[in-house]
Amino acid sequence: MAQGKAAGAKVVSKNVEIAAANRALFRRHGLFVLNLIGSPGAGKTTLLEGTLKRLGLKAGVIEGDVKTSIDAERIRAAGAPAVQIETQGACHLDAAMVSRAASELDLGALDVLFIENVGNLVCPAGSDLGEDVKVALISVPEGDEKPAKYPALFVRAAVVLINKTDLLPYVEYSVERASADCRKMNNDAVVLPLSSKTYEGFEPWLEYIRAGVRRAQAKG
Amino acid sequence: MAQGKAAGAKVVSKNVEIAAANRALFRRHGLFVLNLIGSPGAGKTTLLEGTLKRLGLKAGVIEGDVKTSIDAERIRAAGAPAVQIETQGACHLDAAMVSRAASELDLGALDVLFIENVGNLVCPAGSDLGEDVKVALISVPEGDEKPAKYPALFVRAAVVLINKTDLLPYVEYSVERASADCRKMNNDAVVLPLSSKTYEGFEPWLEYIRAGVRRAQAKG
Repeated sequence: MAQGKAAGAKVVSKNVEIAAANRALFRRHGLFVLNLIGSPGAGKTTLLEGTLKRLGLKAGVIEGDVKTSIDAERIRAAGAPAVQIETQGACHLDAAMVSRAASELDLGALDVLFIENVGNLVCPAGSDLGEDVKVALISVPEGDEKPAKYPALFVRAAVVLINKTDLLPYVEYSVERASADCRKMNNDAVVLPLSSKTYEGFEPWLEYIRAGVRRAQAKG
Repeated sequence: MAQGKAAGAKVVSKNVEIAAANRALFRRHGLFVLNLIGSPGAGKTTLLEGTLKRLGLKAGVIEGDVKTSIDAERIRAAGAPAVQIETQGACHLDAAMVSRAASELDLGALDVLFIENVGNLVCPAGSDLGEDVKVALISVPEGDEKPAKYPALFVRAAVVLINKTDLLPYVEYSVERASADCRKMNNDAVVLPLSSKTYEGFEPWLEYIRAGVRRAQAKG
């Protein structure tokens, strides 16, 4: 086990190094980069489809999935360049995968880059990809106790989106409870309830992205 | 990385050994053991609550969570003995955790043991706990492409439960597509749509468990 831990620490420190290189690359291009993390079925790809249609900025997407390129095809159909990473079993993206995928995009032509992580509320939280912010996506039918039960993501996420608010009439869910639990773990977190189906609550999310792009371009 | 892999292989082979010991222990008690795997919010605990109320057999539960004992408290309120494992960050249960938890239960007094894994559709699939069957729990609001996107679980699961069928009128979901994708990966899989809210489709699931208990008791 000690041997395993030492090797594990080496993998982690290598990832930190590549993530820093990714961050420097993104900074040079004045790009705002968001790492989108949520369970399978929380609605990450549908959120991105709606975001790409309404944002009015030049966006690219790196899609992480264990298997299939279903999601990258959906993103391309929404009009944005997308690179698919198939992890072939790995439970989260790492900085090296993102580095390779980024080299296939024309970063100079973009304002904002979304990285859709593998559907998993646990493992992606600890792995820096070189993003500016982690965005946690949870959804109403998952239940309002999820932030309390999966804290690793919620202490790190700058934004928490509570998706599928259109289903609030059909399930028991307290937006107040979920929001309060998020703020207990990270008082600075921006918590935004929204629906990718009806677009209710979408405007504050788009405005959050636009502000990030303005900041990135001022620094870039 | 080679060092990491060697240490990783050692951890895996240790887990195989402990899982075999768990399986032998469960066999001696004539217990039917199910390892329940699904995303956060797929409805694992609610499914168990309904199952415990309607099954009419003596059941125990081992609850795996990254954090909190919310789920074990819910199971105890439903009238069954429950042991909580808090993994403190680990993304799936392993056989050693289950071995320790099982030692806190009076196995001789039980017919069936449910192990609720950490909410995660990726990582728990590869880790044998000593169970008789893996049960995959997916839910309607997650979307019908989940089996195709997360194959590691679906090639191994003896049963796939498609939960929250009460939400079918409000979201786009093809039970046929999800079922067909499951059968492509494992032609022997029993695919059962059901609702833990309305109990629609619950009886075939209960009957599946009862048949497993009869088989285990005949062997035990």
